[in-house]
Amino acid sequence: MGKQKALMDKLVRTFQIRHMLLRQALAECLGTLILMMFSCGEVAQLVLSGGSHGMFLTINFAFGFAATLGILVSGQVSGGHLNPTVTFPLCILGREPWRKFPVFFLFQTLGAFLGSGIIFGMYSAHIINKTHNNHIQLSLAVLQMIGMAALIMCILAIVDPYNNPIHRGLEAFTVGFVVLVIGLSMGFNPARDLGPRIFTALAGWGSEVFTAYSYWFFVPIFAPFIGVVVGMTVYQLMVGYHVEGEARENREEEEKEEQEEMLKMSSLYVDKTSM
Amino acid sequence: MGKQKALMDKLVRTFQIRHMLLRQALAECLGTLILMMFSCGEVAQLVLSGGSHGMFLTINFAFGFAATLGILVSGQVSGGHLNPTVTFPLCILGREPWRKFPVFFLFQTLGAFLGSGIIFGMYSAHIINKTHNNHIQLSLAVLQMIGMAALIMCILAIVDPYNNPIHRGLEAFTVGFVVLVIGLSMGFNPARDLGPRIFTALAGWGSEVFTAYSYWFFVPIFAPFIGVVVGMTVYQLMVGYHVEGEARENREEEEKEEQEEMLKMSSLYVDKTSM
Amino acid sequence: MGKQKALMDKLVRTFQIRHMLLRQALAECLGTLILMMFSCGEVAQLVLSGGSHGMFLTINFAFGFAATLGILVSGQVSGGHLNPTVTFPLCILGREPWRKFPVFFLFQTLGAFLGSGIIFGMYSAHIINKTHNNHIQLSLAVLQMIGMAALIMCILAIVDPYNNPIHRGLEAFTVGFVVLVIGLSMGFNPARDLGPRIFTALAGWGSEVFTAYSYWFFVPIFAPFIGVVVGMTVYQLMVGYHVEGEARENREEEEKEEQEEMLKMSSLYVDKTSM
Amino acid sequence: MGKQKALMDKLVRTFQIRHMLLRQALAECLGTLILMMFSCGEVAQLVLSGGSHGMFLTINFAFGFAATLGILVSGQVSGGHLNPTVTFPLCILGREPWRKFPVFFLFQTLGAFLGSGIIFGMYSAHIINKTHNNHIQLSLAVLQMIGMAALIMCILAIVDPYNNPIHRGLEAFTVGFVVLVIGLSMGFNPARDLGPRIFTALAGWGSEVFTAYSYWFFVPIFAPFIGVVVGMTVYQLMVGYHVEGEARENREEEEKEEQEEMLKMSSLYVDKTSM
Repeated sequence: MGKQKALMDKLVRTFQIRHMLLRQALAECLGTLILMMFSCGEVAQLVLSGGSHGMFLTINFAFGFAATLGILVSGQVSGGHLNPTVTFPLCILGREPWRKFPVFFLFQTLGAFLGSGIIFGMYSAHIINKTHNNHIQLSLAVLQMIGMAALIMCILAIVDPYNNPIHRGLEAFTVGFVVLVIGLSMGFNPARDLGPRIFTALAGWGSEVFTAYSYWFFVPIFAPFIGVVVGMTVYQLMVGYHVEGEARENREEEEKEEQEEMLKMSSLYVDKTSM
Repeated sequence: MGKQKALMDKLVRTFQIRHMLLRQALAECLGTLILMMFSCGEVAQLVLSGGSHGMFLTINFAFGFAATLGILVSGQVSGGHLNPTVTFPLCILGREPWRKFPVFFLFQTLGAFLGSGIIFGMYSAHIINKTHNNHIQLSLAVLQMIGMAALIMCILAIVDPYNNPIHRGLEAFTVGFVVLVIGLSMGFNPARDLGPRIFTALAGWGSEVFTAYSYWFFVPIFAPFIGVVVGMTVYQLMVGYHVEGEARENREEEEKEEQEEMLKMSSLYVDKTSM
Repeated sequence: MGKQKALMDKLVRTFQIRHMLLRQALAECLGTLILMMFSCGEVAQLVLSGGSHGMFLTINFAFGFAATLGILVSGQVSGGHLNPTVTFPLCILGREPWRKFPVFFLFQTLGAFLGSGIIFGMYSAHIINKTHNNHIQLSLAVLQMIGMAALIMCILAIVDPYNNPIHRGLEAFTVGFVVLVIGLSMGFNPARDLGPRIFTALAGWGSEVFTAYSYWFFVPIFAPFIGVVVGMTVYQLMVGYHVEGEARENREEEEKEEQEEMLKMSSLYVDKTSM
Repeated sequence: MGKQKALMDKLVRTFQIRHMLLRQALAECLGTLILMMFSCGEVAQLVLSGGSHGMFLTINFAFGFAATLGILVSGQVSGGHLNPTVTFPLCILGREPWRKFPVFFLFQTLGAFLGSGIIFGMYSAHIINKTHNNHIQLSLAVLQMIGMAALIMCILAIVDPYNNPIHRGLEAFTVGFVVLVIGLSMGFNPARDLGPRIFTALAGWGSEVFTAYSYWFFVPIFAPFIGVVVGMTVYQLMVGYHVEGEARENREEEEKEEQEEMLKMSSLYVDKTSM
């Protein structure tokens, strides 16, 4: 793993942002993006399915746990306000400096803009391309890629050793909530797809289960892998590299201080003995 | 932040209530208010929407998590009974003194009265003003203000460093539950509103998305800010200032004792050396 | 509180059961009773309401969280198996002695018998007495008493300092789940009832809200208090007094050992000095 | 318990797998099996019941918490990826070695294959045997056995002292979620069945409640016991024995080192004194 590790270290050093406020603003942006993407996605799905895929309760579930996931991704870095009206009273009470307010407002609005834009793009592709079989498959692939990107962003935040916002014993539950929120419509699992497909083939349906959609069956196997790479890259660039870099710098500084301490100690020793 | 901090300190000193039982009674009052507001609100919404916005399960969810939020706000101060029939057996078992029972009963009833009154006022405005467009906008603004006030009261209780009833790793989940309970009908998010609005404008709808309701589009942007200030003020006056003041007094006392200890030590030293 | 405390201590000494297996069997009995009462109650309510009060999801919620509550009440004492098929593999794996199996089986079955019997009695009264207004009020009072008894049993288990099965930071959530499970049909809150009633009276309905049901309006105020006393007594007799008594005995033993230790130390000192 | 304990120890030594990657692969296999079994089971039940037993929300609940349970069973051993697209970015980021990827992919697919196969077999038996009363009873018994096997696998993972993935205070909630996910259709409780049956017999229905289905009433009493033994065996062979064996080996090694340390110390002492 030596080569890979060196490359990873280089990536951290290249992309790490050292300006604290910008880092926090990016985290707020990603958190609000996630909040908006999940809650708008639920509403879009409800409307587009004519009410069959969702109801009053599911919308509130989606909004509630979308907030949870947004806070999990950004909370350790920026506090996870995700909302100017949360930043506002914290500034009044003197718990956050006032200069954060305009910056957070801007990046939260940007995140909400991007989050709703992703859902708009995803479902508009879904609607427009309804006519042709290959187009449906393509738009399904886009859906899967975005779903897996969202899934992996949340999972990476949950298990990130430098940004772990959650008690180890609760990780299993948190991932369960992530899967609950992403829901059926976003995110397929290759193992979940390939295993049953082989089983169905063995159980008598023959190879038709593989060829029915003119070899588009590869899509649910490869699209998620592209999705996770996209999601991983976005998370690392907006949160991951910065928290990792900071942790490394703190560690290096400590080590440096220790060495200096030891050097001083030894030189003192030398001084003493030379006396 | 020097000036602001001094002002904050002065506010704490001014509004802090030092009488323990009164402080606990106020916490019970606010807790029961929150319990009633959320559970009555759910029922009102269910009835007024003709059954479309809610069902048997959502009512029980609302009642259950309304109790959770009421306890979160008041639990550290008063135990979060929120109900005379909970105070009663605790008095019998000798875990609470009997003199608390009539006081808690009174303030719990007062809180329930206020909580149901807020919902009554909110939805009656909603019903009566149905005829005129501007009135609808106004009653929506009232809804948003109350929703944001409720949201920020719960969030402040959750993140209050002097009243933190909840493990850090669970804060994200708790905020998620708050958002779930407040639901779609109460509480808009300026970032959530402005971002998609700009996106919709760019995506081809033009400036109509801003002007359709005769410039009332400012309402969802400013009303929440008024709401959070109201909610923040209520929470600080009924719980926040008292727990903060108490923590400060404990700290000051400890410091004083330490100083006295040090003074005694040094005087002892002086005594010894002067001997 | 001196007299009351002495009385409480006497009650603990009188009712404490020292036989470990019997104590565990009683806890299993109460736990299974709670599990059955909540899960049967949900099914009964669903059937009797003709499907309007419940659905497939609510039944599974009720069964799941009924298990949670049963384990919370009994877990610290007996492990909270609540089911012979859970005790069985634990005996095979050697984690529980085999002699527990028949005793647990008997008391779990007894608890299930009692739990389903309570629901049968409660709803049969509800059905039979449908004809007369006073009878309806009476059966509602029975419902409220049982609901409050169930509520207070769970709450006492959650906050019992000698049987606290749950992290302090999760108590608010746990109480929320208790309220969710007990649901709308079981358990009224005097503060919740009286406050809005006064408000409605003030808001223009006049004193009719108090007298509409020929003064039966007292029922929702007093029935819950009777219920909590019943629930408190059952919990204390079946779990509470035993864990409290055991904790006291452990404490007394420790103190005794400490005293003996000190006595030995001092006698040693005397020995040494007398030498 | 001496004989039983010796047998248990022998079983651990016989079945323990020492190859780390194989052990992790088995855990991934069982975890994905559980994930697939619960999520496919929910979908199958929804489809077969014509939509009455489930809806959009219950499917997402089942998928979400199926992931939680799969992670709980396998997480301590293999990390609980349960999905090649989760293993993939962790390999890219250098947090898992690349050689794990093909092995995990294979065993995850195998687990998904087995999990969907169990559901297929269970419900196909349910469909085919609809014609004859005894066959229905038999297929119900199969359902119960599988349900209890799934229940006990999860419960053993939760309470396993060598694989405890969860905080003690959350065990009651976790078991509640297990019961929620397994739901009404999978898993009966003998105490829950026999108790109410006796009660119904006493309440006037007579012995008919026992004989109505030509003595098949024994099925809900014995089938679960067979189920738990199957579930226990699968869990122990795939996860339990390996974590227990590893814990024992670590303990033995520590003891050995301590003994060696003491031996060295004493020999040093001998050396010194012999000098």
